[in-house]
Amino acid sequence: MNLRKAKVIKFYSENFDESNDDIAVEYPLTVWVNGEELLTLVCSPGNLKELVIGILASEGFIRSLDQIESLSIDYSKGFAYVELVKKSPILNKDLTKRYLGSCCGKSRQLFLYNDVKTAKTIMTRTMISVQQCLSLMEKMQTCSAEFLLTGGLHNAALCTKEGVVIVRSDIGRHNALDKIYGHCLKNRISLKDKVIVFSGRISSEVLLKVSKIGVGIILSKSAPTSLALELADELGITAVGFIRENRLNIYTHPERIVEI
Amino acid sequence: MNLRKAKVIKFYSENFDESNDDIAVEYPLTVWVNGEELLTLVCSPGNLKELVIGILASEGFIRSLDQIESLSIDYSKGFAYVELVKKSPILNKDLTKRYLGSCCGKSRQLFLYNDVKTAKTIMTRTMISVQQCLSLMEKMQTCSAEFLLTGGLHNAALCTKEGVVIVRSDIGRHNALDKIYGHCLKNRISLKDKVIVFSGRISSEVLLKVSKIGVGIILSKSAPTSLALELADELGITAVGFIRENRLNIYTHPERIVEI
Repeated sequence: MNLRKAKVIKFYSENFDESNDDIAVEYPLTVWVNGEELLTLVCSPGNLKELVIGILASEGFIRSLDQIESLSIDYSKGFAYVELVKKSPILNKDLTKRYLGSCCGKSRQLFLYNDVKTAKTIMTRTMISVQQCLSLMEKMQTCSAEFLLTGGLHNAALCTKEGVVIVRSDIGRHNALDKIYGHCLKNRISLKDKVIVFSGRISSEVLLKVSKIGVGIILSKSAPTSLALELADELGITAVGFIRENRLNIYTHPERIVEI
Repeated sequence: MNLRKAKVIKFYSENFDESNDDIAVEYPLTVWVNGEELLTLVCSPGNLKELVIGILASEGFIRSLDQIESLSIDYSKGFAYVELVKKSPILNKDLTKRYLGSCCGKSRQLFLYNDVKTAKTIMTRTMISVQQCLSLMEKMQTCSAEFLLTGGLHNAALCTKEGVVIVRSDIGRHNALDKIYGHCLKNRISLKDKVIVFSGRISSEVLLKVSKIGVGIILSKSAPTSLALELADELGITAVGFIRENRLNIYTHPERIVEI
């Protein structure tokens, strides 16, 4: 469902060749809440209900699954219809509204209005060893063969220290995390002992999703950004990057990483 | 300016080591137009005026530089203030508004309201050889050392067939292209004979930026998405991906790629 065949002319070793390759599907989805258009995004078309639940929670429109009265997807139109239990009009629909307060009480680095409402400081005492970090990255990559086929998908995995609980793939890095968030809310998964493993860069948006989901450790194959590290520092999240073979970089809250 | 030092604990060959690494700066920027808040995005803080001009053109708020009366940046606040010559309130401020018409006359695949106004079908007769494609990708990568240092930046280059005109870097793939667009408008650069070389995936958003800028050939190191290929097909753009060493994949409009 996340992949489709496309014709391609390949040039290699001075020759042209025709072939049919797997390409990542990019699917526009518009979310309607109580009859109002909330947003349109592009995503991979798997696990759309989880994605919508994750977005609604991440942007502060719901706190738990029982605040949703109904949720249906019209796959041919690319529309998700949500009815909330609370029927009042949607406030703060503008998801890129700047937070202009002088102090939000959580982090000086929060700059979007909705993030101030939903980002959480993480207090978990879960610890993980370097070897477990290396092993979880390898396990996530084995679980997510689609990335290897297309070079086009981001993968996020919800893990315990020992192994992968679920993997979600998406062409959008934040969507993969929203699908994880939606899955956790839908299945009332406890997050205290969990770790998120991620294939892409740790941007501020990714770090904020991890905080909103409520997980204290993010492991990435890639680099973090400066703003993500400032947020990780303030929100109590351990950020580990560049996990490749037998090396990794610990950027923030190293107290959760143990040697053995 | 796009990089900053950050402390990191490195694990390698069974040892921990402290070091100071270059990290990509992620900078929140809020754009105000005629006193109204238009949007907030995160970007790399270089070439911000070009970025703002590119976004305004890309979203259909201006068609040329002379429609901007003034543009200033408050770097400490992360605010860009734009005054347009036309003082009427900003319409279509919702940049993720779904286009709900039955036929837009350009492409069946356009799904956002503002894109329908600004995406252009490209008719250029510019052709390029496989060797020139391979060589331009190499040249762009040599020009953009920041990516190698941090693993965190996307690079876009505006090129002739023979060489790189300018390179712009950003943590956001679309921002790098908006900076190119802004530069072209600011300097009245003719686009008929140009090619865009890009380090990241060809998503629908990237493909649409290329169409809005007015360039007929996009060369990428990475994979395209299905929607990007449908758009490229309909908007007359040659999409070439997976350019690595002596190989590449031609996905759409191969008539512009010649063997020698």
